[in-house]
Amino acid sequence: MEINLDRMRNDFSAIVSFTKTPNHGCTRFSYSNEDRQVRDYLLLQMQGLGLSIKVDAIGNIRAIYGEEIDKPSIMIGSHIDTVENGGKYGGLTGVLVALEIIRVLKEEQVTLSRSVELIIFAEEEGSNFGITMLGSKVLTGKYGIADLQSIRNGEGDSAYDVAKRFGLDIESAEKDVLEEEEVNAMIELHIEQGAVLETLNKSVGIVQAIAGMKTFKVTLEGDSNHAGTTPMDLRQDPLSGAGNIISYIQRIAKTVALPTTVATVGKIICEPNMPNVIPQRVVFFVDVRDVETKGIDLVVDRLIEKLNAVAAEDKLQCKIELIGASDPVKLSSRIVQAIEETASEYGYNYLKMNSGAVHDAAMMTDVTDVGMIFIPSMGGKSHCPEEYTREKDIKSGGDLLLQTVIKLAVKRKKTNRTSS
Amino acid sequence: MEINLDRMRNDFSAIVSFTKTPNHGCTRFSYSNEDRQVRDYLLLQMQGLGLSIKVDAIGNIRAIYGEEIDKPSIMIGSHIDTVENGGKYGGLTGVLVALEIIRVLKEEQVTLSRSVELIIFAEEEGSNFGITMLGSKVLTGKYGIADLQSIRNGEGDSAYDVAKRFGLDIESAEKDVLEEEEVNAMIELHIEQGAVLETLNKSVGIVQAIAGMKTFKVTLEGDSNHAGTTPMDLRQDPLSGAGNIISYIQRIAKTVALPTTVATVGKIICEPNMPNVIPQRVVFFVDVRDVETKGIDLVVDRLIEKLNAVAAEDKLQCKIELIGASDPVKLSSRIVQAIEETASEYGYNYLKMNSGAVHDAAMMTDVTDVGMIFIPSMGGKSHCPEEYTREKDIKSGGDLLLQTVIKLAVKRKKTNRTSS
Repeated sequence: MEINLDRMRNDFSAIVSFTKTPNHGCTRFSYSNEDRQVRDYLLLQMQGLGLSIKVDAIGNIRAIYGEEIDKPSIMIGSHIDTVENGGKYGGLTGVLVALEIIRVLKEEQVTLSRSVELIIFAEEEGSNFGITMLGSKVLTGKYGIADLQSIRNGEGDSAYDVAKRFGLDIESAEKDVLEEEEVNAMIELHIEQGAVLETLNKSVGIVQAIAGMKTFKVTLEGDSNHAGTTPMDLRQDPLSGAGNIISYIQRIAKTVALPTTVATVGKIICEPNMPNVIPQRVVFFVDVRDVETKGIDLVVDRLIEKLNAVAAEDKLQCKIELIGASDPVKLSSRIVQAIEETASEYGYNYLKMNSGAVHDAAMMTDVTDVGMIFIPSMGGKSHCPEEYTREKDIKSGGDLLLQTVIKLAVKRKKTNRTSS
Repeated sequence: MEINLDRMRNDFSAIVSFTKTPNHGCTRFSYSNEDRQVRDYLLLQMQGLGLSIKVDAIGNIRAIYGEEIDKPSIMIGSHIDTVENGGKYGGLTGVLVALEIIRVLKEEQVTLSRSVELIIFAEEEGSNFGITMLGSKVLTGKYGIADLQSIRNGEGDSAYDVAKRFGLDIESAEKDVLEEEEVNAMIELHIEQGAVLETLNKSVGIVQAIAGMKTFKVTLEGDSNHAGTTPMDLRQDPLSGAGNIISYIQRIAKTVALPTTVATVGKIICEPNMPNVIPQRVVFFVDVRDVETKGIDLVVDRLIEKLNAVAAEDKLQCKIELIGASDPVKLSSRIVQAIEETASEYGYNYLKMNSGAVHDAAMMTDVTDVGMIFIPSMGGKSHCPEEYTREKDIKSGGDLLLQTVIKLAVKRKKTNRTSS
């Protein structure tokens, strides 16, 4: 039993045409016209498969396949929205793989002891409201109606109003929260968005943990002056100090922290930013992630120490603000084991790994047992038009997920039978 | 004999009202309405003093006082244009001091053996065309009509057309080039634009040399990737590399280069500049200055060495482009000595120093003997609304220039008489 790439090719080519930015990657925000088009396409496919479909208050699509509708389901899926000028594969690959798996299960008339549920999360990328995973946060009760009324997009419209205007029954947000009894396990297949699998020549990754993160905003304030007339020893140059700290952070993350720790300065703002003026103020953002809290703490402690030392030496004022944080999440050892056993049985060249990015799957861990399967992103590129995942890797990841679903939704029945 | 601060106060308050940005510093570009207003004001003052006035092709105002019109003059002055949201003092102080000196010479009926010429340079700041000292460059024949036709402002208008539209006889640019026989010496009084005089508690600076400079554009190209999913050892992070180089440049300029060397990174551009994305490309500008070519070379050699080392270690592509250069200029020892003798005679608390900024005076050094007097800029602030020079310092610098002019334009006659 295996997934059919021809059908998936049709799905991809239909859906990629629904973009706001033709020839400049995929731009498909939740609650947009393009979102409406891809939803219509997918709903038609699901109706064709006879699924029992529900679109919830925030726009998550839940579609159940199978007879055992009262038992906790095996949930598979991902998201369909993109960033601006994003890639073709993003969350869509996980959604199309899940859809294709249900096609195969139906086609092969697999007898299931549990239903299989296709989940399509809304607003994962945070493209509308700057808050990622809004759909899975609402589904798992992390955000309620009051939150949705206060979360606003660039035009000042609340998530509540945007969802309502899209035709959703947003008032039901709290009624629609997922109950533990509804789901036995959730597995999300996603592109890796990094280059580890490609570099190690692995076709699939089995995710054990999702990294936590801390994001800091660091401000260094000096004294702006003429670059020609201010001797070196009269300077208070915040960019020189920032440079020192930025290069130090990378060195610390490489050498002192854990092998799993990553730290990045991706954004820097320099004022007034003129070639012949010593800067007045530099702001930069530090993003530290690890599956181990200890790794994050190691970098953060050194960062604060270094910041104070540089500020004192260069006579700068400094400020560090924590602007975002999430804890590391361990995925279910039961599900990880089920995926790994399947991968071994079918001879996949797999890697047990961690996820540096957060996914809807992480939101699900307080409701059910969660697993994730990664497939390679060529060159590690993601969130850009160059994003690319090979068909053969989609096939490997898709088949692995298919067999794991069968193991969880069929073999479990056998096990029960044996033990009873 | 001394300058009259009351009259200068009137001049300042009249002229500061001619700005395009009331309450946000002085904005007075050459060839603007505000420029027209200040010119009209100053021309009226000059006419009142009976000066022989000429506005040249590019808009420099030359106004001669004295009988000895055929002998090489003692030229004093500076510029009246500003940057956007610039300061009150800029070049204007030097112009108003020069005007006031002529008032005093006339009032006191000083017998001169040379005429004294007030020079007001046009377009020193480069606010229109991005080319500094355009007026003095044209006056000294460095730019001709063909250059003026190719130099363009942000709207695409050539300097030639802008000057013509302002009513200038731009076709005479090459006829108007200053001849060596016209001028015996040139002295520019200017605010320091740095904090050296204030820091050392000196009331005037006697400039010995004007720094040369080299400006480089450095580009580091890495590989943009997700900040969460790319392990440290798979990264090619151009911002971390740039930070390393930027902090190194300051250290080198402080420790390895000459005491007179300064090096600055004032502008940095990071792409895509998102907190959770490893940057793809970082561009920064390095401004290196010294009155000794050797000091510049010491920093540049180390910069190139470091750039290559960092690029190799961090697997980055790098490029370094020289985008601007000027040689160091020694001012005339005859004039420096004349100023210093005067300062000693009158008991000024002076400092012999160098200029890190380039001035119109530097352009004049290939035509005549040039000197410069600096007066303190509080906090070293310049090119901003906070620019401030105390009246007592204007008085000191102005009186020193007055006495030096008298020494050069009167005493020279005595010396001649004695030796004849």
